[in-house]
Amino acid sequence: MFESAEIGHQIDKESYEAAVPALREALLEAQYELRQQARFPVLVLISGIEGAGKGETVKLLNEWMDPRLIEVSTFDQQTDEELARPPVWRYWRQLPPKGRIGIFFGNWYSQMLQARVHERIDDARLDQAIDGAERLERMLSDEGALIFKFWFHLSKKRMKERLALLKDDPLHSWRLSPLDWQQSKTYGKFVRYGERVLRRSSRDFAPWYVIEGSDANYRSLSVGRILLDGLQAALGHRGRPAHRPHAAPLVSSVDNRALLDSLDMTQALAKPDYQRLLIAEQARLALLMRDKRIRRHALVAVFEGNDAAGKGSSIRRVAAALDPRQYRIAQIAAPTEEERAQPYLWRFWRHIPPRGKFTIFDRSWYGRVLVERVERLCSEADWLRAYGEINDFEEQLNDAGVVLVKFWLAIDRETQLVRFKEREATPFKRFKITEEDWRNRDKWEDYSDAVGDMVDRTSSEIAPWTLVEANDKRFARVKILRTLNDALEKALRG
Amino acid sequence: MFESAEIGHQIDKESYEAAVPALREALLEAQYELRQQARFPVLVLISGIEGAGKGETVKLLNEWMDPRLIEVSTFDQQTDEELARPPVWRYWRQLPPKGRIGIFFGNWYSQMLQARVHERIDDARLDQAIDGAERLERMLSDEGALIFKFWFHLSKKRMKERLALLKDDPLHSWRLSPLDWQQSKTYGKFVRYGERVLRRSSRDFAPWYVIEGSDANYRSLSVGRILLDGLQAALGHRGRPAHRPHAAPLVSSVDNRALLDSLDMTQALAKPDYQRLLIAEQARLALLMRDKRIRRHALVAVFEGNDAAGKGSSIRRVAAALDPRQYRIAQIAAPTEEERAQPYLWRFWRHIPPRGKFTIFDRSWYGRVLVERVERLCSEADWLRAYGEINDFEEQLNDAGVVLVKFWLAIDRETQLVRFKEREATPFKRFKITEEDWRNRDKWEDYSDAVGDMVDRTSSEIAPWTLVEANDKRFARVKILRTLNDALEKALRG
Repeated sequence: MFESAEIGHQIDKESYEAAVPALREALLEAQYELRQQARFPVLVLISGIEGAGKGETVKLLNEWMDPRLIEVSTFDQQTDEELARPPVWRYWRQLPPKGRIGIFFGNWYSQMLQARVHERIDDARLDQAIDGAERLERMLSDEGALIFKFWFHLSKKRMKERLALLKDDPLHSWRLSPLDWQQSKTYGKFVRYGERVLRRSSRDFAPWYVIEGSDANYRSLSVGRILLDGLQAALGHRGRPAHRPHAAPLVSSVDNRALLDSLDMTQALAKPDYQRLLIAEQARLALLMRDKRIRRHALVAVFEGNDAAGKGSSIRRVAAALDPRQYRIAQIAAPTEEERAQPYLWRFWRHIPPRGKFTIFDRSWYGRVLVERVERLCSEADWLRAYGEINDFEEQLNDAGVVLVKFWLAIDRETQLVRFKEREATPFKRFKITEEDWRNRDKWEDYSDAVGDMVDRTSSEIAPWTLVEANDKRFARVKILRTLNDALEKALRG
Repeated sequence: MFESAEIGHQIDKESYEAAVPALREALLEAQYELRQQARFPVLVLISGIEGAGKGETVKLLNEWMDPRLIEVSTFDQQTDEELARPPVWRYWRQLPPKGRIGIFFGNWYSQMLQARVHERIDDARLDQAIDGAERLERMLSDEGALIFKFWFHLSKKRMKERLALLKDDPLHSWRLSPLDWQQSKTYGKFVRYGERVLRRSSRDFAPWYVIEGSDANYRSLSVGRILLDGLQAALGHRGRPAHRPHAAPLVSSVDNRALLDSLDMTQALAKPDYQRLLIAEQARLALLMRDKRIRRHALVAVFEGNDAAGKGSSIRRVAAALDPRQYRIAQIAAPTEEERAQPYLWRFWRHIPPRGKFTIFDRSWYGRVLVERVERLCSEADWLRAYGEINDFEEQLNDAGVVLVKFWLAIDRETQLVRFKEREATPFKRFKITEEDWRNRDKWEDYSDAVGDMVDRTSSEIAPWTLVEANDKRFARVKILRTLNDALEKALRG
């Protein structure tokens, strides 16, 4: 969930100052249009890590926009008035009316997260709270509200750096609150439960936006752009607000750095190392699959990646270590007639292995948020809701003891070009390259955005994505086998 | 939830046989149209009490319709195949494809109810299961599926009668299964948890239909009609199935008997009895409101009812017993400008009392499913989703210790006519009768249906409706005060 918010996004001062005036003007204009139309309210929820710039961002939004049309509400200690009524009353009384923006700084998510981190509630109670939040937000959305949920994130490293820096600075140490120190101890828990909350409560009508908080310019521009795009889309929607596509569009990163750009694509293995490591990992996999405890689990591996990134050959290296009775490869191409007559996920459910078995998905259910999104094979509403549906699906697998490993094989544009040409030049490889591959290549940026969103919205502790630097095939194959083995070993031990 | 399914619905043989041929033909036609369009599948979930005719109804549907286009799946013991995979896999593999009807006899609700009744899970886990079911159904519905959920009900009395009857009949005692005997012991729990499940999982896109099961003719016609109406509405909807209004329309009872018809409207109190009882209940209320334990609770009373049923004068009798500092009367009329700029429930949340206080709602949030529904002041989608939203709202009140008492004051048409004329004839009462009252009177049947649906969908253990026979005002006032006192006393004791 937080992958894209740990890659060190930043925007230099010049670019920032060049971008702000137009953004401010557009935001103000949208704000007046919102008041003019008075058809729906806007609700902005601010959550996340202490010190990741939540307060500064809210302050800035008030400076950028017309503060008379924004109401900021904080929800710390409940007042006597509030304590005397149902917990949700305090939020109802602060709801922005149609035509206005309400910023809830601290909100229902803060309450449930604090309660879970400090063990006042357990997972089942947390899920009840998340469910309650979802019902509330769905109702608000059905009533027309446009909802933005921002999670401000800092990697553990950045958080510690910040604490160290401020602590010793007599002019700035006042910036640190008791909450900062408390969180430095509970960071791991906070992020883990935060991920659970985001995974289950990011829905098409009220998606979460995770913002990397370390660079002020970056986070300010990001939040501003997301608000602007969402506002403009909703203001432009004709008809009843309850019928508009609920999500603000996903927004590509304002510093043009995507998650995939953060990979070190130079990683490689020399042939002798490769052969030694490959054999070792294959042997390890074979042994693990023969372990008795495997009977309590099933294994599912998902292979996605750029065209010509080497999915096929990697899968062969995995399969080579396995007893053919124990595994299957599900090759996902266009759906059959029978599959088209069923809900989207049906054709993947058919291939879910029983305990003790292993299914390798050569492409997968992620097609919906990759090719179907980019090529517009389904509606925006369909792929937007798919993130939540996929998270639910993978949670069901995980709950049943299925070990799920997901690989994105990444190559850079130049490597792809070399491989495409090589395929065209080699007679027995020519079938592997089609017009469509060249067309996909033209949409490189779109696919890159889609992959970033996919990883941000579906990588989780229970079903993490592994990004595989695949310019060097040998490096990729070993990394894949090792990741598989580590996941399997961890599950068997647990 | 089960009020309308305990009033002894029945259809005589002649009417039944007269109605069946046309219904069968229409169902068959709808079925072929469904296959022809092949745009969406139909999923029918069968749940409820043993012996309420679940099996017979499924059998009959297969006789009435083309069985080649219906697949019935039962989900008893999990097979080895199923046990080796995530629990939900068994449902996925049996999903009907587009153009066909799948009947799930025993389904996810049966599993969670059995688990809760036999204490294998607690309430929080039950809620997690309900939440999972809701996510699954929403996804199926977003993918186009038309979902019907039938709950076959028998009152405890009928269930016992049936058991007694069959037990001693050598020709029929084989009809009783071990499940029947088991359920006769767990009936109370089964109905209580069943109500929780229905309350939380009845959503606009997949509503529950509660069917009284004691009379075979009635239940068969009811199920047939609901299926037919829902199918025809969905088949007639242009555009993508995912965009159709999700619910089959609510259907008025096929024997033309509504819940309100089951009231004994002749109940009355003589004046001396009335005065004695009124004073006693008023004193009781005054004492209860002075009890120290009231500080842990708040009290909310909702008054709805036919025009001229005597809401105002009843409220005055309640208020007469109270310290004016302790209560408020919220008179709900057309929303103000400020209220129109907020989500529907906002204007009721503002009046929710703090602990220790009492708010009397003269009309309430039920306006949406009564006048707004009947007068078409909101869209069908809006009032259909309101049942679920209201249940969520009242659950939040209940969780916070608010005692909620809801009254429907019922009079019959003749009594209303007499009162209307009396008002017109009395100078100081003339302001109480308007053109609108006469217009509402013309829609008596529509309101009657709306009240029945409202009670069926929002009466629950935590927030029951009390139907007040109000032809005799004295009887009504005493019943209201007594009900209030009983509820308050129970809460203070608990």
